[in-house]
Amino acid sequence: MQDKIALEEAFALPRFAEKTQWWAGMFAVDAKKHTTEINDIHKIRPGYMDKYGVGYTVLSYTAPGVQDIFDREEAQALATEVNDYIGNEVKSRGDKFGVFATLSMHDPREAATELTRCVTELGFRGALVNDTQRCGQDGDDMIFYDGHEWDVFWKTCTELDVPFYLHPRNPTGSIYEKLWAKRSWLVGPPLSFAQGVSLHLLGMVANGVFDRHPNLKIVIGHLGEHIPFDLWRINHWFEDIKKPLGLDCKKTIREYFAQNVWITTSGHFSSTTLKFCMEEIGAERILFSVDYPFESFSDACTWFDSAELSESDRKKIGRENARKLLKLD
Amino acid sequence: MQDKIALEEAFALPRFAEKTQWWAGMFAVDAKKHTTEINDIHKIRPGYMDKYGVGYTVLSYTAPGVQDIFDREEAQALATEVNDYIGNEVKSRGDKFGVFATLSMHDPREAATELTRCVTELGFRGALVNDTQRCGQDGDDMIFYDGHEWDVFWKTCTELDVPFYLHPRNPTGSIYEKLWAKRSWLVGPPLSFAQGVSLHLLGMVANGVFDRHPNLKIVIGHLGEHIPFDLWRINHWFEDIKKPLGLDCKKTIREYFAQNVWITTSGHFSSTTLKFCMEEIGAERILFSVDYPFESFSDACTWFDSAELSESDRKKIGRENARKLLKLD
Amino acid sequence: MQDKIALEEAFALPRFAEKTQWWAGMFAVDAKKHTTEINDIHKIRPGYMDKYGVGYTVLSYTAPGVQDIFDREEAQALATEVNDYIGNEVKSRGDKFGVFATLSMHDPREAATELTRCVTELGFRGALVNDTQRCGQDGDDMIFYDGHEWDVFWKTCTELDVPFYLHPRNPTGSIYEKLWAKRSWLVGPPLSFAQGVSLHLLGMVANGVFDRHPNLKIVIGHLGEHIPFDLWRINHWFEDIKKPLGLDCKKTIREYFAQNVWITTSGHFSSTTLKFCMEEIGAERILFSVDYPFESFSDACTWFDSAELSESDRKKIGRENARKLLKLD
Amino acid sequence: MQDKIALEEAFALPRFAEKTQWWAGMFAVDAKKHTTEINDIHKIRPGYMDKYGVGYTVLSYTAPGVQDIFDREEAQALATEVNDYIGNEVKSRGDKFGVFATLSMHDPREAATELTRCVTELGFRGALVNDTQRCGQDGDDMIFYDGHEWDVFWKTCTELDVPFYLHPRNPTGSIYEKLWAKRSWLVGPPLSFAQGVSLHLLGMVANGVFDRHPNLKIVIGHLGEHIPFDLWRINHWFEDIKKPLGLDCKKTIREYFAQNVWITTSGHFSSTTLKFCMEEIGAERILFSVDYPFESFSDACTWFDSAELSESDRKKIGRENARKLLKLD
Repeated sequence: MQDKIALEEAFALPRFAEKTQWWAGMFAVDAKKHTTEINDIHKIRPGYMDKYGVGYTVLSYTAPGVQDIFDREEAQALATEVNDYIGNEVKSRGDKFGVFATLSMHDPREAATELTRCVTELGFRGALVNDTQRCGQDGDDMIFYDGHEWDVFWKTCTELDVPFYLHPRNPTGSIYEKLWAKRSWLVGPPLSFAQGVSLHLLGMVANGVFDRHPNLKIVIGHLGEHIPFDLWRINHWFEDIKKPLGLDCKKTIREYFAQNVWITTSGHFSSTTLKFCMEEIGAERILFSVDYPFESFSDACTWFDSAELSESDRKKIGRENARKLLKLD
Repeated sequence: MQDKIALEEAFALPRFAEKTQWWAGMFAVDAKKHTTEINDIHKIRPGYMDKYGVGYTVLSYTAPGVQDIFDREEAQALATEVNDYIGNEVKSRGDKFGVFATLSMHDPREAATELTRCVTELGFRGALVNDTQRCGQDGDDMIFYDGHEWDVFWKTCTELDVPFYLHPRNPTGSIYEKLWAKRSWLVGPPLSFAQGVSLHLLGMVANGVFDRHPNLKIVIGHLGEHIPFDLWRINHWFEDIKKPLGLDCKKTIREYFAQNVWITTSGHFSSTTLKFCMEEIGAERILFSVDYPFESFSDACTWFDSAELSESDRKKIGRENARKLLKLD
Repeated sequence: MQDKIALEEAFALPRFAEKTQWWAGMFAVDAKKHTTEINDIHKIRPGYMDKYGVGYTVLSYTAPGVQDIFDREEAQALATEVNDYIGNEVKSRGDKFGVFATLSMHDPREAATELTRCVTELGFRGALVNDTQRCGQDGDDMIFYDGHEWDVFWKTCTELDVPFYLHPRNPTGSIYEKLWAKRSWLVGPPLSFAQGVSLHLLGMVANGVFDRHPNLKIVIGHLGEHIPFDLWRINHWFEDIKKPLGLDCKKTIREYFAQNVWITTSGHFSSTTLKFCMEEIGAERILFSVDYPFESFSDACTWFDSAELSESDRKKIGRENARKLLKLD
Repeated sequence: MQDKIALEEAFALPRFAEKTQWWAGMFAVDAKKHTTEINDIHKIRPGYMDKYGVGYTVLSYTAPGVQDIFDREEAQALATEVNDYIGNEVKSRGDKFGVFATLSMHDPREAATELTRCVTELGFRGALVNDTQRCGQDGDDMIFYDGHEWDVFWKTCTELDVPFYLHPRNPTGSIYEKLWAKRSWLVGPPLSFAQGVSLHLLGMVANGVFDRHPNLKIVIGHLGEHIPFDLWRINHWFEDIKKPLGLDCKKTIREYFAQNVWITTSGHFSSTTLKFCMEEIGAERILFSVDYPFESFSDACTWFDSAELSESDRKKIGRENARKLLKLD
């Protein structure tokens, strides 16, 4: 399929090349290739896009990125630098590239202000944030965005009418020590990523974020970070037990997924799982993505183009849903 | 369907009735009814079984149970009491009831010894343990069973050739404070249960437990605690990235699920999800269960009996797979 | 779900009550009840609609109806009578009832003229025809509508922009004798209906009707009369073998199903099959229907309302797709 | 997957090469290649088998074959010739090739006698027959095998305990003229094949063949010739309407499919349809097949080996079910 749109596609700052390569050693078979690819915008990437039928890519700063920086001022400075850098890189290539803003999430107002600048001045398409913001003196704490203090930020998202991509981040600090240190092969895509994002997103549901911001648009990757699998079970417990006991969401979990949440295929190229998600949340809520350069265009696109889908569904997932969400028309 | 077999069915000790009712207030709409039902073996339960076509139930001590007791001696004493109590209750009803042993998991040898006693002397069918064992002076630590020190226990399981049911437990201590306290509606069935068990089971995979004990039989509930959803993604990262980087499991995640793992329908009465699991891991690995009295016989059995399955699959999942696993013939 | 729309719902002429009851004896357990129900418009039917959440019903004259009348003049007279009768019955109830025109299909121009009258003067929503038109001196021949001589009729359909529902008819004459007489339990819903309609519709595809009338809208019932099951196989043989050998359709079978064909759930209340159809042709092309009074509102609606679908898909199939197709807004 | 078993694989008699090539012109893009391939046993075929992981092939005489010969003596003579020819060809290659007997179906006793000879003397694995037997002075009649006169034949099948493969045949005579002549692109795999076999098999069901021969084993190709799609609808009409009206099968259609019928993947390489069939009739009843040389090993095997199935299901469908049915162990 030609002219696919991809939404979870990473870049890094070239000045961090050495650090990027060290980090890539933990998850990339060829760390040097990964570093070259993630620092590139104009040479390698468009070649893959053309070869594999991706017409438009939304770029975002790689994880854990600014969410790993527990010093507030340093985080804010890096976010600004990243946004200026990538805004400048793609400003003449708006036909081919969009950008999700990078945000420091230490302070809701600061995040809202930078998002506003990115959308209104730089033409960005929304924001992508890597799960909780690491914080505290020694980096052992974390900030979730599901409390009332974040209403000011979510209000800005809905006023700007742009999507917010909730991307995973690695566990850090004492959580890492207690749960993950002795089973570190599970950190990242095999397990920890999905556990982090699903807790965060369902926290937003349970704490009423979507009731207070009914037009908020959240995107999550990897076919929904486990949540679609348990939609029946979550719904059953929320509606039949938790609400009678005091949980006060206004809608059902299925309604939030129908109105506020989109999922992408990033890093999960299974037709069986995709079709299950189509049954549970509908083809309208699913967006093609690669997760480049952590995943390859070849794996993602060869799979998607030949997956046994109706052409109408392939178009929706491959392009049309994204065009509407990103307002590309 | 008549003569279904159910494997995740709880009882409590009547002497804790007051505490049980207090605890039930956190997850049961009618805590008093729950307490009556969980303390009953012979009056209410057989009525439900007859009415809803369940011919055989494997009983297990309710969660968090012994896994919540961080004092080692107290935990061991309670486990013994529980096993003696339930062994006595059902000894003349072996046609209708089986038992999974309750174990203190503070010490691998102690656990192995008690399991051996339960299986060889009391005729129990295996063990059911509620995730990690809480431990430490103030109960803030936890023991996973995926390290080499547990080989002696897993060896006993395979020599006795009985299944081990890895059931969830609530998060406690600093993990609870950091992740769950402000989103406590997600504790239990909506999210924390699956996150705990999937980490634990995949830890066993990644740390080689199934390579060292290739005949080990593990059962997990709730249609697999999220793992079937990500089987493709786990397999992709294990095989294509983690193994080249050093992960040294001998088999693929799909092979462990085909040889060492069974899942039950406890608390997850969705045909869509069940069928997805049948596609991913096969009808041979799925076992009907209710999760009574946290769930109702009515919800579980009405759903299962009328789910759109081939009769051959319904029989396998409803009864035949369990007969083989529990060696009931 | 409230306000469902149903499209394959039959009525008969009260003056034929005796004949209707005799005919019903072949397929209805209670022929008298069937006769009462099919002759009723305003008393029994709205009660079912209200009770089971059907807000709008498109009525059509029962099969085999006019397609069984092999005398051309008699057929035309009956079609006119039926249309006048039902138009009069529902003219003040346009909020609740629409009508598909009854047509004699002995002559393309005559059919086009009557359809035009029904749509422009009586406000009908399209036409429903019962497969081939029986014809010939002794009723042993039949007319298919897939030859060039029917272009004038299909042109009228597209100019009026109304759907044409291709409904089944019983086999008659020598075809009946050779194939069905000794296996008459298969006549009707178990087999012959689907075989007749699928041959007719695929004949239209193979003979280029949709190439000459690219905006033609055809509806078939019973989840597609077997065709979705073989879409892969038909497509493979059309594209890889038949077209190289001379078949000259311009598009693929999947494209015709995406652009010209809708299917309804009439008489096929299986979630497994519905979901398969959603995968093969997409939720956009599927329309809820009952097939009353051959099927019951209770069976159809209880199933559909509780089928494990996303709410967005349930709304499309239950109502929204029909509103667009019938231009009800 | 290595060591797959294939069951619907055709050969022809080399002495008919000229006629075979003329016939192939109607359905093969390269009729000469088809003729070479279908006449070959030992040169081309084993190369494909090795390359694509097929370890064992059951050969059968190509359609319409003996079923097209409406002279009884000529038919019987050809059947004998074919069986002697192929028996001789493969007698030293029993590790790689099995055979389904070719039968003239003009007379039940004659067919039973030849089948017995083939199984007991030549070691054949069952029979494959091409739908109805053409008969009559001018070949315009046909014999179905669903009447009581065929009990002697079915009794022989069950006594020998071998499967009977009901393969399609082209429509002939007046049926062809009335239904297919003007839509000849639908003759064969796109439609007529499935319509013929499904009528014949359901005729056997409705006329009680499986009640009188409860151990009879029938195989049909192409993922079930449409029937799995309508299993719900057939079951509903049989059980709720036809049986109250007099149909007297002892079991449900689902039970016959669970006990008497197997389907193969021949010529239908769609994962979506395969998975639907697995849901409706279970992986135990499905057998891999190619339909060579009408289909290619490459299409069949590349698809099957990479289809998203659990390995346990892939083994069942690819090999294990066939080993049991054909008693290869």
